Amino acid sequence: MIQKFRFGTPIKTDATVAELPVIPVTAAKDAAALTKFFRLSLENGFSLSLAMDDADAVYGLGEANRGINKRGYKYVSCCTDDPNHTEDKVSLYGAHNFIMLIGQESFGLFLDYPADICFDIGYTKQNELTISTDGTDLDVYLITAEESATAAPSSRPAGNFAESAALSIVRQFRTLIGHSYIPPRWAFGYIQSRWGYMDEKDIRRVAKGYRDNHLPLDSISMDIDYMEDYKDFTVHPERFPDLAALSAEMKEQGLHFVPIIDAGVKIEPGYDVYEDGVKNNYFCKRADGTDFVAGVWPGKTHFPDFLNADARKWFGDLYKRLIDAGIEGFWNDMNEPAIFYSEEGMEDAITKASELMKSKDNPDLNTFWGMRDVFNISNDHADYKRFYHNMDGNKIRHDKVHNLYGFNMTRAAAESFDTICPNKRLLLFSRSSYIGMHRFGGIWTGDNQSWWSHLLLNIKMMPSLNMCGFLYSGADLGGFGSHTTRDLLLRWLAFGIFTPLMRNHAALGTREQECYQFEGLDDFREILKLRYRLIPYLYSEFVKAARNDALLFTPLAFVFPQDKTACEVEDQLLLGESLMLAPVYQPNVSGRTVYLPEDMLFVKFTSATEYSMEPMDAGWHYIGCALNEVALFLRKGHLLPLCPPCECTKQLDYTSFELIGEAGKGISYELYTDDGYTKNMEQEGKYVTLTL
Amino acid sequence: MIQKFRFGTPIKTDATVAELPVIPVTAAKDAAALTKFFRLSLENGFSLSLAMDDADAVYGLGEANRGINKRGYKYVSCCTDDPNHTEDKVSLYGAHNFIMLIGQESFGLFLDYPADICFDIGYTKQNELTISTDGTDLDVYLITAEESATAAPSSRPAGNFAESAALSIVRQFRTLIGHSYIPPRWAFGYIQSRWGYMDEKDIRRVAKGYRDNHLPLDSISMDIDYMEDYKDFTVHPERFPDLAALSAEMKEQGLHFVPIIDAGVKIEPGYDVYEDGVKNNYFCKRADGTDFVAGVWPGKTHFPDFLNADARKWFGDLYKRLIDAGIEGFWNDMNEPAIFYSEEGMEDAITKASELMKSKDNPDLNTFWGMRDVFNISNDHADYKRFYHNMDGNKIRHDKVHNLYGFNMTRAAAESFDTICPNKRLLLFSRSSYIGMHRFGGIWTGDNQSWWSHLLLNIKMMPSLNMCGFLYSGADLGGFGSHTTRDLLLRWLAFGIFTPLMRNHAALGTREQECYQFEGLDDFREILKLRYRLIPYLYSEFVKAARNDALLFTPLAFVFPQDKTACEVEDQLLLGESLMLAPVYQPNVSGRTVYLPEDMLFVKFTSATEYSMEPMDAGWHYIGCALNEVALFLRKGHLLPLCPPCECTKQLDYTSFELIGEAGKGISYELYTDDGYTKNMEQEGKYVTLTL
Repeated sequence: MIQKFRFGTPIKTDATVAELPVIPVTAAKDAAALTKFFRLSLENGFSLSLAMDDADAVYGLGEANRGINKRGYKYVSCCTDDPNHTEDKVSLYGAHNFIMLIGQESFGLFLDYPADICFDIGYTKQNELTISTDGTDLDVYLITAEESATAAPSSRPAGNFAESAALSIVRQFRTLIGHSYIPPRWAFGYIQSRWGYMDEKDIRRVAKGYRDNHLPLDSISMDIDYMEDYKDFTVHPERFPDLAALSAEMKEQGLHFVPIIDAGVKIEPGYDVYEDGVKNNYFCKRADGTDFVAGVWPGKTHFPDFLNADARKWFGDLYKRLIDAGIEGFWNDMNEPAIFYSEEGMEDAITKASELMKSKDNPDLNTFWGMRDVFNISNDHADYKRFYHNMDGNKIRHDKVHNLYGFNMTRAAAESFDTICPNKRLLLFSRSSYIGMHRFGGIWTGDNQSWWSHLLLNIKMMPSLNMCGFLYSGADLGGFGSHTTRDLLLRWLAFGIFTPLMRNHAALGTREQECYQFEGLDDFREILKLRYRLIPYLYSEFVKAARNDALLFTPLAFVFPQDKTACEVEDQLLLGESLMLAPVYQPNVSGRTVYLPEDMLFVKFTSATEYSMEPMDAGWHYIGCALNEVALFLRKGHLLPLCPPCECTKQLDYTSFELIGEAGKGISYELYTDDGYTKNMEQEGKYVTLTL
Repeated sequence: MIQKFRFGTPIKTDATVAELPVIPVTAAKDAAALTKFFRLSLENGFSLSLAMDDADAVYGLGEANRGINKRGYKYVSCCTDDPNHTEDKVSLYGAHNFIMLIGQESFGLFLDYPADICFDIGYTKQNELTISTDGTDLDVYLITAEESATAAPSSRPAGNFAESAALSIVRQFRTLIGHSYIPPRWAFGYIQSRWGYMDEKDIRRVAKGYRDNHLPLDSISMDIDYMEDYKDFTVHPERFPDLAALSAEMKEQGLHFVPIIDAGVKIEPGYDVYEDGVKNNYFCKRADGTDFVAGVWPGKTHFPDFLNADARKWFGDLYKRLIDAGIEGFWNDMNEPAIFYSEEGMEDAITKASELMKSKDNPDLNTFWGMRDVFNISNDHADYKRFYHNMDGNKIRHDKVHNLYGFNMTRAAAESFDTICPNKRLLLFSRSSYIGMHRFGGIWTGDNQSWWSHLLLNIKMMPSLNMCGFLYSGADLGGFGSHTTRDLLLRWLAFGIFTPLMRNHAALGTREQECYQFEGLDDFREILKLRYRLIPYLYSEFVKAARNDALLFTPLAFVFPQDKTACEVEDQLLLGESLMLAPVYQPNVSGRTVYLPEDMLFVKFTSATEYSMEPMDAGWHYIGCALNEVALFLRKGHLLPLCPPCECTKQLDYTSFELIGEAGKGISYELYTDDGYTKNMEQEGKYVTLTL
């Protein structure tokens, strides 16, 4: 059951799709269903707090730091460009205000509020949960499990398991917010990317590096350097003289060229996007009505007002310029929005710096600290109060709706795609997001680092993203910032082959990390080939999850809620109906311990085509898994269908499947399939029963 | 066996104590024993490289990042003040050039070279080890296992186990570098610290917070604010009007006051330390003979030339000022040396900034980057080339001997202590260090963060530190930078009670993390009391390790080299002859998996005095261990003696021990004990046999 409580006059976010009766809260008694669990306060902003039981677990928050169980820290929903996200960071690129407490009493909350929210989940006091906002205008959805949902007996096979409270709450929440975006099937192919590919030659070199070495690949995603002076919807005339020809040439090889689009539009007289935006008042404005200026990659830019429906339409239609050149996929970036500096911030900094420089003949420690920090003005919250949106004619200051910005940039593109390409799904994913954006595109998890701990974070983040509707997602495999190593990349790929978005992406200045840069290419080749063998299963499970508002990656806790050990295991995930994953995420080990909440079949791939099978009883096991191996666990009564290995999705062969499962049991799998592009999936998609 | 190869004319570091025949290397053939393993190159500096076998493990490097097995990354010996040490950082506070390869052929190397050394251990190529330096003047010690040392059968009880190759190499290396520093016994008591205690009142508040709540405590360590304007060997006249009285008052309560000493000496006419240093040429000088100026906490400072024996004596004797006020322990800090800025660096930065500021009316992105980064001049390697030492009359540029600086600051103190307090051991530990310093004092592992990953790093670093002679060591429990949480602190303390240096330390601006700041004090109290119950065992094992050049913390790999699983387990440690530790280092778990390389007794403390015992067979186990519990494993044939709980070392009762072990086996433990202060341990220390 979902109850919708309205506090004050919330801003319309379009996060949800279901129409629910509104319970307006003017006094605490109006929110009795909420205050049954929480202490509600409307003094000094809005807050809800409760005392947690030792055994309570807290889930949700989508793209947030730390574990699947979010207890033990605080998190602030505030879309932030922070690639150096160590354990203590409270804000990442997305803002996903869905939280769920599972315990003696279980419930979910969605706070539809697009400004900062703090979730203190046992940080200030170990057993206290407090959710607070500065404002008091918001919708709060309280979701309780369906009556039928109870703790599932751990021996029930998946697919048939009684729905746990957690799964019931998630399913209801997902129904509230609408079906998830489904990309074209080729988007499940492996993507290579790097900030630093400068021209066509670089692209061809990457394509050749993969194709010559028979390393599977489906796409090359292109960072900011394809543009002319970082101007959106331009292509550099010397470095990429003929995008359409390049795109066609790539497609010949079964490759897609996936360009980036940044939020900020370069200020440059004569640049039509800039001029049209100015003319039509499509850019975010200062209080005085002038266009706000932010320094980003192109230098000074204006921010399109994606919260203005007209501006959204205008910006979205601009993607046609690239689509007409054969482009079928995009990634939207810098849309928190990232602000290197605002004109105002820069001016203040320069004034302060000039003041400090006066003592330059004998600077003291304070002068030094001052000078060192004076230009640390990037992503300054003060800037969020310096510009405004035009939402349905209302002037709304950015900080009140900060977390909607990236969402609406991606929505702009997606809505236009429906007109530009009415019959074909395009690939679209974003860095920043808010709940609701999951209907329009996927997300990658932002700029991470080549750290083993970020591989583990990737693993732990996937189910939380799924809870919030983000199914098409993945991390920068190998790590974006800092230098990767061969073993880290291999282990990361061995997990990444299971994530819908499977992209290797690295930053300028870091070690080159295309697979062919390393020794021992066989190891990479076999892991990538296995990805392609898995695509029919992944795509099928993905579509089912999207259409049924279900999880693709499921925490063990949600399926085995009465198994205390399973509930604490966060480095293993269920994937679809058939699989449990237990990735290796540590260096210098040849295996790991795995907890089986039920008897399973341990399947270890020593190459894309060779594997061993070993039935294992429920309980703890140590499994060997070398750097070039991929381990997975097959659930009883389920199958894993594998197609033949290939080097791109164009070659996918749906006519012959190898079925892995317990012999002689007559187990079957319902495989969803379609042409990989159709938007008319209900009609054109079909289910094929595969039986062992 | 140890062979000493001399390349060129090395700088005398005093890292080693044993006299060995020198094999001068003028051509590759001179180094046949080395080139048996390595490719040696003397072009473009010095380098040794070899192809590693998949099964080889690499150990050593003391205070270095990442795992016990150092494979898979690179490390640069260059003492660096970097509190934000994420996985990708290659240099920490210490420089410990001992490395050991264990495999089909095993050997250790010590590179006695006090400038930068890069250890590329499978970073550039996964199976390639390369050790390289820019210079070619160094001593290289090659250590091979004694003939008798072989892989130990894993069933042999500790204490009697055949010495593995790793243990043989470490023991020989430790004999080469001399016995480790032994602190007074009270230094095994719990230490509370914080940067931010401003005055006597703060100190009394901390003392009261612990004593009133019956939370055991032995020391309060004092950061920079006790000094007058951060001037070494001064005490702030208002904030600490009578240090001797305060020290006496503390001692009444069984507490020690442990002040910090920083490397840089404030430039201030009238300040005698400054004036004496200038007058006697005791400070590091520029090429032109003027005293080098570095900005550190006091503002502009000079660096004492600790590599000059006279300056060392002068500086060491200054500690007497505080010792005379009753101080019995010190920590030496900022001695990498940390340099916020040099006068030259500041001048350059100001020139660049002035240039950039010219375009201040219309700054572009490059101007912005420039301004943002222009004052990032702290710990700039360029500064290491701007000052010189006077070593035995030779003018040596700092970068050539950078890693000796902290070592010799601590040596300065220790050597003077022998004169000032000939009969009493004082507590002394340092931030920066080089091998050799272990004879003079301990180290803490520098400014870490309140990250769970830094708790794990603490666990993994302990045995590596021990290999390099640093036995008295520990991390800032709870984490220095960023905000801690109750659960993190509890788990960290539950490991910290086993580290010789057990200090809770936090940075200014972070959450207060004295134990009494949190709810549920019972949990803290029992864990701290257990520490005190353990001290007789810890002190006894510590002294044995120091005198026998042995490890206190031993990797499982060194004792069970034929057990492949044991060799890979890095989150468990052997501690002394009796114990194996398996700390919990993850949030939101009520236990963990543990690998037992042999049958052991699982002992779980639910309070300081209550515990359960469960014999466990060799193999993998999952053990429950709640946030307020401490788990340990007792090795077969061994005892753990526990004294009664108490609140400070002054109250330690050596007359009645509780002995934990397998019943009815007549097992005994040799307990070393003394008065806790004597330097004459051979004569005054004694061994008591405790028998179950």
